[in-house]
Amino acid sequence: MRYYIPVFLLLFACQNASVKEQSSEKLVTEASPNETFLKSWESSERKSQLMTFVTNITNTEHSQYIATQDRIAVFDNDGTLWSEKPVYFQLYFTFYRLKQLVAQHPEWKQQSPYKELLAGDYAAALHSGEEALIQLLMDTHAGMDSKTFQQLVRTWLKEEQHPEKKVPFTDLVYQPMLEMIDYLHHHDFRVFIVSGGGLEFMRAWATDVYDIPSERIIGSTVKTTYDYNNGQPHIYREAELEFIDDKAGKPVNIHKIIGKHPVLCFGNSDGDLEMMQWTEAHPIASMMVYIHHTDSVREWAYDRNSAVGKFDKALDEAKRKGWLLVDMKEDWKQVYAFE
Amino acid sequence: MRYYIPVFLLLFACQNASVKEQSSEKLVTEASPNETFLKSWESSERKSQLMTFVTNITNTEHSQYIATQDRIAVFDNDGTLWSEKPVYFQLYFTFYRLKQLVAQHPEWKQQSPYKELLAGDYAAALHSGEEALIQLLMDTHAGMDSKTFQQLVRTWLKEEQHPEKKVPFTDLVYQPMLEMIDYLHHHDFRVFIVSGGGLEFMRAWATDVYDIPSERIIGSTVKTTYDYNNGQPHIYREAELEFIDDKAGKPVNIHKIIGKHPVLCFGNSDGDLEMMQWTEAHPIASMMVYIHHTDSVREWAYDRNSAVGKFDKALDEAKRKGWLLVDMKEDWKQVYAFE
Repeated sequence: MRYYIPVFLLLFACQNASVKEQSSEKLVTEASPNETFLKSWESSERKSQLMTFVTNITNTEHSQYIATQDRIAVFDNDGTLWSEKPVYFQLYFTFYRLKQLVAQHPEWKQQSPYKELLAGDYAAALHSGEEALIQLLMDTHAGMDSKTFQQLVRTWLKEEQHPEKKVPFTDLVYQPMLEMIDYLHHHDFRVFIVSGGGLEFMRAWATDVYDIPSERIIGSTVKTTYDYNNGQPHIYREAELEFIDDKAGKPVNIHKIIGKHPVLCFGNSDGDLEMMQWTEAHPIASMMVYIHHTDSVREWAYDRNSAVGKFDKALDEAKRKGWLLVDMKEDWKQVYAFE
Repeated sequence: MRYYIPVFLLLFACQNASVKEQSSEKLVTEASPNETFLKSWESSERKSQLMTFVTNITNTEHSQYIATQDRIAVFDNDGTLWSEKPVYFQLYFTFYRLKQLVAQHPEWKQQSPYKELLAGDYAAALHSGEEALIQLLMDTHAGMDSKTFQQLVRTWLKEEQHPEKKVPFTDLVYQPMLEMIDYLHHHDFRVFIVSGGGLEFMRAWATDVYDIPSERIIGSTVKTTYDYNNGQPHIYREAELEFIDDKAGKPVNIHKIIGKHPVLCFGNSDGDLEMMQWTEAHPIASMMVYIHHTDSVREWAYDRNSAVGKFDKALDEAKRKGWLLVDMKEDWKQVYAFE
């Protein structure tokens, strides 16, 4: 991967062409339909900037009008559409699988990161080094056909709960973000998830939970192979990591799978920075939105020093460039639907 | 890749659940709107089978009803949506690039497959072995950013013509297949191209020509990387083959990128056999359609012994299983729009 990020760029003034140009245009606002959307969002300046942007790019009279076929929005998943604390929820699934499999692998009780995970020490498990963690993922996520794997994920979701919130994991999706997806669909956007999480882990539940078709879910993958299987073909998940859909992998996958620049990008961590930059390069208009975890009561408050969802370098860049920083505590009336 | 295709399967009787079950159902046919579709198709038994299938699976009262979100159709490109003779059109682009680049690479005049291609001997070039051909593709298709590459393809399409038909290459798309795409869109199908051809080679023109959004075009890829490029990010095409979207690669990509079983599959060669089998495994209903090149006057006639678009093993399987075999000479009133 190539990274040419010269230091002199840091000296550039904040620029956001989208916001700049908007102010010189007659703002066209819809009569009342907008009031039916984004109900869990406080009436803040940030909500208003978001809605003005969508109103403008969907207005044929506006200089930033974007035709329906080009209305692409991309969303990170962990920490952007659902919570990711104390650790990514896929790690709980990994633990669940580990417990199922350990009887066949007594040696795991002495090995890192298995022994740490079996002892419930997720933080220590996360510090076992990349190679060991990938092996752990392969042991628990691969070596089976795709249907079997998705069924395992669905069973886990039925059986297990979030250890702190004591609700099913899929209850921990953000109500304001569900409304955002709905709002964008209503304005003829095609909404894609672009997540570092496992592709098939997400597809097992995300189509239903977010109302997003399976082909608009993009994630990290293991190598898969086709097996004719005596006339009952299946796709087999090999124990080999294929692609990590994080950091520079996100624009690479957006380009490969979608083939168009996004117009709107939502993320929450340094792992989303490259897809923000790729969105920013849209030739007509774009808006980059970071969800900032500021609510230690209703959700979790974290940014620069968090092991999960670290938001540091990208926080600086977002501030410097004037990207939209959604403040969960200030901007959201409600975090989860069950509240 | 795994291939377990036991010989005893060859003994199985022809079975096509879709067609079998249809005959026992009350066939619901639309009043007249169907007459406005597929106008270049002769009123044959095969056209009628196709339309009956679509009518049934879109009829909520029918046992094979398929909800709109699951209506996926996949089409091969070369030989299925446009011609592929005397050689795949992407090879003409390769030759065009070679002529542009040879001044900087005088050594190519002595090397296979460059020298054969420069002499216009496409058949000999195709027999230079896989490794040499891949190197040729990398030399002519990679080592540049994605936008530059797509622009090269568009310029080639403007400047060059098909050597025998003396028309632009994109004029050699099949009118009956354009009508098929339109017909399926009208019935709320999501139509995907799943081709062995290069992904970005196709995206340069196929969205316009077929009216298919870029994210529904799937093809072979080179490895790509993201480059921040001093704030003007681009995607760079590395000189490394990433994935060949042919044979077993087709169901693998269909599963990875679409994430659903297709309901309808169109192809023309042995390279499409695995995606036909994958389609056939749809749990509710499916139709597998092979386009058979039988028209030596208006197009080209070839199957079992052709170096390009070889249709041999799959022809046997299609006959054995009762898949639909479209006879281009018999079933199409018109092949190209310009006729």
